[in-house]
Amino acid sequence: MSTLVLVHGFWHGAWCWSEVIPHVVARGRPAVAVDMAGHGLYARRPRWFTEQPYDPEAVGAEVSPVADVTLDDAAGLLTAQLRRIGGGEPVTVVAHSAAGPVLTRTAQQTPELVAHAVYLTAYMPASGVSAAAYTRLPEAADDRVAPLLRGDPARTGALRLDFATDDPAYRQGLRAAFYGDVDPDLADAATGLLTPDGPIGIMAGTTALTRDGWGSVPRSYIVCTRDMAIRPGLQARFVADADAAYPDNPTSVVTLDASHSPFLSKPGALADILVPLG
Amino acid sequence: MSTLVLVHGFWHGAWCWSEVIPHVVARGRPAVAVDMAGHGLYARRPRWFTEQPYDPEAVGAEVSPVADVTLDDAAGLLTAQLRRIGGGEPVTVVAHSAAGPVLTRTAQQTPELVAHAVYLTAYMPASGVSAAAYTRLPEAADDRVAPLLRGDPARTGALRLDFATDDPAYRQGLRAAFYGDVDPDLADAATGLLTPDGPIGIMAGTTALTRDGWGSVPRSYIVCTRDMAIRPGLQARFVADADAAYPDNPTSVVTLDASHSPFLSKPGALADILVPLG
Repeated sequence: MSTLVLVHGFWHGAWCWSEVIPHVVARGRPAVAVDMAGHGLYARRPRWFTEQPYDPEAVGAEVSPVADVTLDDAAGLLTAQLRRIGGGEPVTVVAHSAAGPVLTRTAQQTPELVAHAVYLTAYMPASGVSAAAYTRLPEAADDRVAPLLRGDPARTGALRLDFATDDPAYRQGLRAAFYGDVDPDLADAATGLLTPDGPIGIMAGTTALTRDGWGSVPRSYIVCTRDMAIRPGLQARFVADADAAYPDNPTSVVTLDASHSPFLSKPGALADILVPLG
Repeated sequence: MSTLVLVHGFWHGAWCWSEVIPHVVARGRPAVAVDMAGHGLYARRPRWFTEQPYDPEAVGAEVSPVADVTLDDAAGLLTAQLRRIGGGEPVTVVAHSAAGPVLTRTAQQTPELVAHAVYLTAYMPASGVSAAAYTRLPEAADDRVAPLLRGDPARTGALRLDFATDDPAYRQGLRAAFYGDVDPDLADAATGLLTPDGPIGIMAGTTALTRDGWGSVPRSYIVCTRDMAIRPGLQARFVADADAAYPDNPTSVVTLDASHSPFLSKPGALADILVPLG
């Protein structure tokens, strides 16, 4: 079986898969988590995040140090990671959340590197449509992330969350948006590892899809039914749009009764789904 | 070849191995990074770390939320991780820095789970001696971490570093202690993921070693010649003590021209060393 490469979404890092990987590897399938451009070991934090005293005005105003990261950059990094990990052989890529458009661009450009494209409650945008455009659909109307965003992305260059505030209502909002079914101590530990800025370029970029590019790659979508960040109706919309475009290569859909973060709340069940994927 | 299990040191998490693992897996050897007790997804941060405004007095005084984590706890967690990952088969365990005593305890208790014990510039204490005792030897006199520690471990229950301060001299001290040869952006990204408290119990605990326990497990020591946290003289002392106790099972020593953090500064060279280890 091909190696599984796990790509986190905005604000997270390779660290978020640490509970899943042992389950997968124990069953004989290699699995590697990587950092997305602008995240994890490639993150750069805005000054307000560490400066004392905390300045809420700077949170809304400072231009992000990752404002220059584009979808091209992110796909370039992922492509290099896939080549290194697979040694040129195709690998199965699991993209969570905002890693979706990065996987889509990569699979379109180098379909020979992607044995299977797996979208875990991820943005899976149609040809020429940005992930950001989907956040403005009615299906996204009641997501819990939008009210937590700080600053104008057109000015800051980022989808920014304020992990420096100690406002209990805001911190409770973060938990409800991302970690509704996660053990509270685990959710706190994860929140402490999040970085504030998701590069807007990844959400704003578009990819022209073709039948022999992305359309040729086997794909699965793992629907998370209690997701408050990417709502189930929006997840269904991604699948419907993809299947309308490529009816001969339909999406294989699996459902998981989980929040946006099954890698923390249900790592064993998630591994059960991932291990058999070709 | 057995799976490589990578265990970070104090203040770090599984995330610190993200640059190494692709190199290892690309060569056909499975590798999994895990979080140590009190770290990564198991971390609990003291209140001062997120409270506004920043209060340097609390940094020195607050009892750590991981003060209750013992060497027993840490070895118990690692043992469970090894069992899950290996499915009961032995694995090769790479311990960095303060993960050393955790590996030693685990290998002593369950030598059948450890195919090879690899100490990467790690504490490798002798029978009945704590890792903390080694920090008081002349060979540790010029380490750069001790001056950065905050609070009295007897009171806080932790070896505590202040990652909330924006004092440039202190932040420069952190870089010199841990990341002297690491790209500055990468070092900043890593520093942002560190957690403040290493449970003192892990450094204070001792393990009675036996010939058919830890003494029976093949071991390697990777010396990092430019390490400012665990100095080369102290690394040599660990090897000398072990070889004096178990001359029939001598330590295999490899040298790497690196700081305390070759997983960031020289991930490819470190993978070259790790991949062939039985």
